[in-house]
Amino acid sequence: MAIITLTTDFGQKDHFTGGTKGAILSELPDVKIVDISHNVSPFNILEAAYIIQNAYVSFPKGTIHIIGIDSELNPENKHIAAKLNDHYFICANNGILSMICSEIAPEKIVEINIHDKIQTSFPVLDVFVKVACHIARGGTLEVIGKPITNIKPIKNILPYVNDDKNQIIGSVIYVDNYGNVITNIKRSFFEVIQKGRAFEISARNYKFKKIHNKYSDIVNFNLSEDKRHDEGRGLVVFNSGGFLEIAVYKSNSATVGSASTLMGLNLMDTVSVNFISSSVLPKISEN
Amino acid sequence: MAIITLTTDFGQKDHFTGGTKGAILSELPDVKIVDISHNVSPFNILEAAYIIQNAYVSFPKGTIHIIGIDSELNPENKHIAAKLNDHYFICANNGILSMICSEIAPEKIVEINIHDKIQTSFPVLDVFVKVACHIARGGTLEVIGKPITNIKPIKNILPYVNDDKNQIIGSVIYVDNYGNVITNIKRSFFEVIQKGRAFEISARNYKFKKIHNKYSDIVNFNLSEDKRHDEGRGLVVFNSGGFLEIAVYKSNSATVGSASTLMGLNLMDTVSVNFISSSVLPKISEN
Amino acid sequence: MAIITLTTDFGQKDHFTGGTKGAILSELPDVKIVDISHNVSPFNILEAAYIIQNAYVSFPKGTIHIIGIDSELNPENKHIAAKLNDHYFICANNGILSMICSEIAPEKIVEINIHDKIQTSFPVLDVFVKVACHIARGGTLEVIGKPITNIKPIKNILPYVNDDKNQIIGSVIYVDNYGNVITNIKRSFFEVIQKGRAFEISARNYKFKKIHNKYSDIVNFNLSEDKRHDEGRGLVVFNSGGFLEIAVYKSNSATVGSASTLMGLNLMDTVSVNFISSSVLPKISEN
Repeated sequence: MAIITLTTDFGQKDHFTGGTKGAILSELPDVKIVDISHNVSPFNILEAAYIIQNAYVSFPKGTIHIIGIDSELNPENKHIAAKLNDHYFICANNGILSMICSEIAPEKIVEINIHDKIQTSFPVLDVFVKVACHIARGGTLEVIGKPITNIKPIKNILPYVNDDKNQIIGSVIYVDNYGNVITNIKRSFFEVIQKGRAFEISARNYKFKKIHNKYSDIVNFNLSEDKRHDEGRGLVVFNSGGFLEIAVYKSNSATVGSASTLMGLNLMDTVSVNFISSSVLPKISEN
Repeated sequence: MAIITLTTDFGQKDHFTGGTKGAILSELPDVKIVDISHNVSPFNILEAAYIIQNAYVSFPKGTIHIIGIDSELNPENKHIAAKLNDHYFICANNGILSMICSEIAPEKIVEINIHDKIQTSFPVLDVFVKVACHIARGGTLEVIGKPITNIKPIKNILPYVNDDKNQIIGSVIYVDNYGNVITNIKRSFFEVIQKGRAFEISARNYKFKKIHNKYSDIVNFNLSEDKRHDEGRGLVVFNSGGFLEIAVYKSNSATVGSASTLMGLNLMDTVSVNFISSSVLPKISEN
Repeated sequence: MAIITLTTDFGQKDHFTGGTKGAILSELPDVKIVDISHNVSPFNILEAAYIIQNAYVSFPKGTIHIIGIDSELNPENKHIAAKLNDHYFICANNGILSMICSEIAPEKIVEINIHDKIQTSFPVLDVFVKVACHIARGGTLEVIGKPITNIKPIKNILPYVNDDKNQIIGSVIYVDNYGNVITNIKRSFFEVIQKGRAFEISARNYKFKKIHNKYSDIVNFNLSEDKRHDEGRGLVVFNSGGFLEIAVYKSNSATVGSASTLMGLNLMDTVSVNFISSSVLPKISEN
């Protein structure tokens, strides 16, 4: 049974998601439809790229992912379908796929050309659903589009490294439900530059000298509970997607606060890492 | 396999939706349950009517739609089930169905009368689920209710036309996830009154003389990107549901603003269309 | 076909829920996955306990419930799986199960011990999904954990009764989508203490002397509609889950107001019931 996932900026209230599912089920009664997110900020390509990149890998090979963000067809915003890492993606050629493609080369990309038969102001329902159902039935990409080799890039998906290779300048690409602040600095990238050196991470006037493996690593469980004051403390982890994340232990933006609210960190803000050459290595204290 | 959809004001947090789905699956393990929306504003009949009207048509014939808004049974709020356009609807007789019924006559409506067996303060779970599963198993409406011929009307679903037929006075019936403002003026209705005349659409002190087919129609793609200033510009379209909509290009209520926030347009506000007799037809400039 | 439900604090935007579903479908293509809630307030054990307690009973026997709240494994927060009332629950041992367990004794509880094979910062996806799929395939709890007899209790799930048995002091444990305020006073508990006596319920400076069966019970349908002023009126009901709830008729926190906004009642606030001995029983007037 085919699986079709949906990642959109439709929100939770409007009829768009329900209508899209109805259209899929009208073509393929037995398909599984899975919502990844409908709460991408309107027209926010970077958020959508982060969400789909982290979600798709958990799905079985062959899953078809519809991404409905900024998908109105116009001369500069064509529709594409791609096969990559044995998954299928259907979206506008507006940069959404470039985060995934920066790590794994797509096997095939086509520019969808079934539009001569379809005039629409709701392309997810009218075009993307048609393409998804075509693929789910075993159809090939060549039937619904012409092969292309390049897709539109996206800004800010890669951090900057200085010439001396002792500084990474990254930026915040996502703020999650806990108010944790996720940067575009991936563990693999970090470690290549680090070469085992000590470091200091700076975000506004906050400094961190350690990256933890999980959130509760900062808790000293040898202390009795009333002597600990960990809720609300800041820390840095590589999150489950491998991204460097500035977090707050047991955060909640609405109550105790979060990394975003407490440290004033928002989308596109700078987070930098300074590596310290071993000859001047200071005594590292955990933070 | 039967499909049952849910449109409610339960929100995303409470146990109501999960409980309802559990009750359906307890009766019919193989049914497909599809959420249309659970974020209808509490007790807002007009929003629910707009959402279900636009969503249901995409589903296969025979789909069963549960609408759980203001559904507590009382002497003035009976439960009904209707067959219409080969779809089934189960809801309270509080006006929700009248928008759909104003366009397509129902084949059959019954007032549900299985309540002597059921005392409940959660009618969606206890009554609507029972009726939906009965229909999904192939049961007829007559078994669960007595036929009626009229349903409660809803206010503000039709715009007003003046005697001279040169003005339509509509109202805002929905604000969508992008902050776009949807009126009760449908394309078919508009064109019957228009008779090819030029027109001016007024919403507060904003005026529009053109209705576009899609949002990006206002962009001049011949200009280089830095010379365009289209994000945040207002425009009018007939949306994918055929309703006259006042929109803002690439709007986002939280950042660049939206038709609702920028123009101060909210539910029930007036939007009027003045038709200009051809003898005094001015030079139309696009807006 | 097995059913797996999800109750988490992941919110509606992030990739966590989509990723979890993908991981389940990768193991079990035919399973039914049902969202109960992803909008539990971050790390809020009491909210999660209330939601799962009210939702699970509607599902068929044998359903597997994943509860992903505060689930990072650490020395004080072990992972458990329990069989109770013929349902399976997988969660952290942080109090979430104690509300259900306070009413129905679990048949079996195990502390999950498959972690030597799994190092993870996303335990719902990496651990809970594995356990759920094991159970869905017919596996026993003993294979994935070692039996334990006690689970961590939760504060504030039971109200206090004074020595004279003429007062119940409860607290607000949940505020629902309509702004209705739910207390930890259950009907069964209330009636045991009441012994038929009259009573006065106090919440801040609001007093109620009657508990209704449904919300519209306060409306006098003999009056014409323009003579009623019921929208926005406060009342007390036992809700569909059997909890004493302070409500407002046709409430909407964003417009007419709700019990929470109008009466200033929030999580953990006190609601008390004073029973009046029959010898001094005053004339009861409905409120």
